[in-house]
Parts: sequence; C-alpha cells; structure tokens
Amino acid sequence: MFTGLSAFPLTPIPGNGSVDEKAFATLVNRLATAGVDSIGALGSTGSYAYLTREERAHVARVAVDNADGVPVIVGIGALRTLQVLQAAEDAQNAGASGVLLAPVSYQPLTDDDVFGLYEEVTANLSIPLVVYDNPGTTHFTFTDELYARLARLPQVASIKIPSLPADTAKARARVEHLRRLLPDTVTVGISGDAAAARGLNAGCDAWYSVIGGTFPEPALALTRAAQTGQHERALEESQRLQPLWDLFTRHGGSLRVVAAAAAHLGLTAQRNLPLPLRGLDAEERAHLSTVIERLQLHT
Amino acid sequence: MFTGLSAFPLTPIPGNGSVDEKAFATLVNRLATAGVDSIGALGSTGSYAYLTREERAHVARVAVDNADGVPVIVGIGALRTLQVLQAAEDAQNAGASGVLLAPVSYQPLTDDDVFGLYEEVTANLSIPLVVYDNPGTTHFTFTDELYARLARLPQVASIKIPSLPADTAKARARVEHLRRLLPDTVTVGISGDAAAARGLNAGCDAWYSVIGGTFPEPALALTRAAQTGQHERALEESQRLQPLWDLFTRHGGSLRVVAAAAAHLGLTAQRNLPLPLRGLDAEERAHLSTVIERLQLHT
Repeated sequence: MFTGLSAFPLTPIPGNGSVDEKAFATLVNRLATAGVDSIGALGSTGSYAYLTREERAHVARVAVDNADGVPVIVGIGALRTLQVLQAAEDAQNAGASGVLLAPVSYQPLTDDDVFGLYEEVTANLSIPLVVYDNPGTTHFTFTDELYARLARLPQVASIKIPSLPADTAKARARVEHLRRLLPDTVTVGISGDAAAARGLNAGCDAWYSVIGGTFPEPALALTRAAQTGQHERALEESQRLQPLWDLFTRHGGSLRVVAAAAAHLGLTAQRNLPLPLRGLDAEERAHLSTVIERLQLHT
Repeated sequence: MFTGLSAFPLTPIPGNGSVDEKAFATLVNRLATAGVDSIGALGSTGSYAYLTREERAHVARVAVDNADGVPVIVGIGALRTLQVLQAAEDAQNAGASGVLLAPVSYQPLTDDDVFGLYEEVTANLSIPLVVYDNPGTTHFTFTDELYARLARLPQVASIKIPSLPADTAKARARVEHLRRLLPDTVTVGISGDAAAARGLNAGCDAWYSVIGGTFPEPALALTRAAQTGQHERALEESQRLQPLWDLFTRHGGSLRVVAAAAAHLGLTAQRNLPLPLRGLDAEERAHLSTVIERLQLHT
C-alpha cells in the first residue's frame, strides 16, 4: 500500500466554519476514479491539525466511504500522545488502511520524546503506520539514528521523507543510505512535490503527493513514468510543472496554492482554508489560474 | 494590570492523564499569597496548547477561583481562529482579567494571517489582551511594523517580547524604540527569564515570568529591586539565578526544568507534563535539586 502515488486531498474548511463534507467527498472520489494507489486523508494538506477529534473522526469516515476501495491513510498527529491515541482509534474505526503520524510540537521535542510517542502509538495500533517527517510544520528534525530505531517498531511500514539533495547522484546515494538503514519491510516515500521525480528515480517507493490530491493525472503520469524506468520522462513532467513548484515556494508551502487551485477548478468554494490562514488574494489567484490553464491542468 | 511581576504557573498534567486540579489550585494560590502582581494561567508553562477546550475552560475557572483577587491572565492561543474565539469566550466567562494570545502555527503564518487573527479576536473581546511573541514555540517572527499595527487594535494592552540584546545600552535602545512605536496605553513586558533584570532595568513595565510561577519570592525580589531603581541589585539577583538559566538552556527551554522543580518542592506529582514531553531523568533531577538547595529556593 505504501508504494506508488499516495494523493493527499484538501479538507475544505471555510474560514471559521465546519468542514465542507460534500466537497471533500467529491475530492476523494475524484482521486479514486483517477486511479491513485492510496489516498492520504487528513495530511498537512488536509489540515488535520486544525480540527477537533470529532471533526477528524468524521472526515476519516467520509474519506473511507468515498474512496471506492482505494486504501485510505489517515493523519493522526496531535500535540498530546493521548490525542494521537484517540485519533488512531477513530481512524481504525473509520476503516482506514493505515495511519500517518508526524511529531507535532509546541514545546520543542527531544529524540526520546518522539521515540516514546511512536512506541506507545504503535503498541496500540492494528494497522500500519507511516512516519511523517515534515520539519517545515513540526519543527522537529529526525536523525538517521532515530529513523532506524522507529523503523524497528511494530506496524511501522513507511517513512515519508521531506526532500532530497538537488544533485541526482547525491539523491540516489541518500536513498541507498536509507535503504541500508531500514528493514526491507519499510518503504521510503518522497514528499515535497518538487523533489518527487528525483526521489522516485532515485529509488523511493512512494510519492506522498500534494498536487496528486488536486491534480491526480499529471502526478500519475510522473509516477508511472518513474516506476517503469522512464526516468527522463518523469523529470520532464516535473519540469513542466515547475511553475507550480515556484508558486509553492513563493507562498510558503503548497497548501495555499492547492487550496486556490481546487477553488479555481470549482471543486470547492472560494473560501476553503481554516482561519487564520488566508487564501491567495485576487491577483495571486489570477496568476495561478493562468498557470493552470497554460499547463492544461484544468481538466 | 500589565506591569510588575506576572507569574506563570505550571498546569500539572500527568502523562496521558487529566489535569491535576488540586495541585494547580495550590500552585495558583501560592502565587497570590506571595504577592505577585498578576497570574498568567495557561501560558506556555501552563501547557495550554496541549489541552482541549473543556479542559482549558475548567483550568481558567480554577485559576480565578484560587487567585484571591489577584488578576488572572488566561492564554487563549490555538491553531484555528474559531478555537481562539471559543477560548476567549470561556476565559471571560471564567472571570479572567485579561487574555494572552500567541500566533500558534502549524502551516507557517503570514503577517496578514496574524493581523487578521488579532483583529477578529479583539473585535469580539471585552477584556484586555496581551500580544504574546514567542518564536521558540510559534515559529512566527513579529516585525516592528506588525507590533505597531497590532498595538492600535482595541483591547491590546501589552506586548510580551521574547528577549532583548545582551548589551545593556542596546537593550535600553531597543525598549526605547518599542516605546516610540507603541501607544502609551500599551505596556512592554519581558519574557525569557534570563533577560528579565536587563529588561526591567531598560524600562520594560512587566516581567512575564516562568520562574515566578514556581519560585515567586526571588522573582519578586528581582522585580521590586528593578522597579525601585536598584538596578545593580536586580542584576545581582538574576546573576545569582544563573544556574537556573543555564538549565533552561540545557533542556531546550524552561518548561521541563520548572516542572521538575515543582515536583521537587512537593507541589505536584513527579509526572506532571503531558506526553510526549518527558520530564528530566533521575540524574538531571538530582542535579536540579542540588541547584535548588544551593540557591536556597526550597522554601
């Protein structure tokens, strides 16, 4: 399950309002129809951190109910271990095939804190877990030693790494190093969409993809090219999408961009992010629309 | 209210368990008895970010009920504006005299996000608000321009700044610069205990104090010295406490140290932090105990 394209849909949340369940169901079902390998509900793109326990449990159920049998991985990160355990229970009850756990922080975490968190959560889990390394939002930096310790815990099935060196040879060396470090049963998935082609070409098993959650077709084209050894074609597809990666950089991450894109495609209302996060302004939306049209992503 | 010593007690939370209400009430009442100028409940030291809405509302009520009339400032930060508005309502209903708001983040925030947050919250508030600048936990960096914009909002009564330059003249220049930037009605409070004497001597109106929440007497001695123009005495008191400041640095912040100190004093159980945060280990606790005894803080 933790190979190929894992697509992370937005959870549309209008400002101070409730989750737009209907739009979310449509987003999820669209991914299943497109043929993604798994669906990552309540990832960072799915704004898991902004929702209450009850909202998250409900969103997890809606995701599974609308995934047409495609495996759903549910984000269970929270500041307190207790809340993570509750989210894990709710995800399992919702029918999730796996869970995704980032070490969310307010007080800076130590390696022992983080190991203890994963140890306790995996001991109480009956489905596989993805270790989610996202220093841009958690402000926690994993060491290779910690990766190796976590990978030996029961249920740990994959590690979602944030990026890779820009140099092809260095990226390959890094993935090979991780392979030696981790048991064969644990896959390595690349995150950071701009690094996806490089990562898959370098031997990553999966792409945990933001754009895959809103634009599944180009993400599938890139993934399938890499999976069938067409490395140049994968890189070309990534290069073609460079204007999107540039927008991610300009807007401090991918979320605001894909949220505006989903609205542009008519998949959600214009207001689809939880405040205090503001969406792109009118001028930025107009520019994004141009990019979407030019890249023919509006299908 | 936003002058002098504002003391921030721990909220004792045993691992995955519920708030130890009795211990919290004792901690609060102890501060009132010592004569602090205000009590900061549910600050970072009070682990506000780790608790549910219901738990926070309850802790706020316990704080007000045990403060013997000393003004209580309640932390209302949360990832979602909606949750901040709810916490503000709960704090007011609990009888808080003021609220403290940090721009907590998961997705990185823009200046416009943060201004919008404070604008919406203050428009719905009938008690004063402290702008809480704590980049170590929020990962948001305030600009002076944003300080100035926020200080003009209704109800904004104080800014809690994280630190000041180590150089005395530069610290003074910085405080004077902030004074020119902000309306006269808005006080400036120093946070970061190691910078407290320097901050108060440089003209800060308040010390938002971590150690004041567990060791009110030395914090009061330092504050009163600075307030009565005994600048050298304030600095000497801070210098005397240097072993504590060193421990804060060594343990990635003050929380784990004051939590272990509160346990050492018998004010809380040994386990008093929400998991995944682990307390100090046995060796670290033994060292801390030595420091507490040597500094005669065990009264």
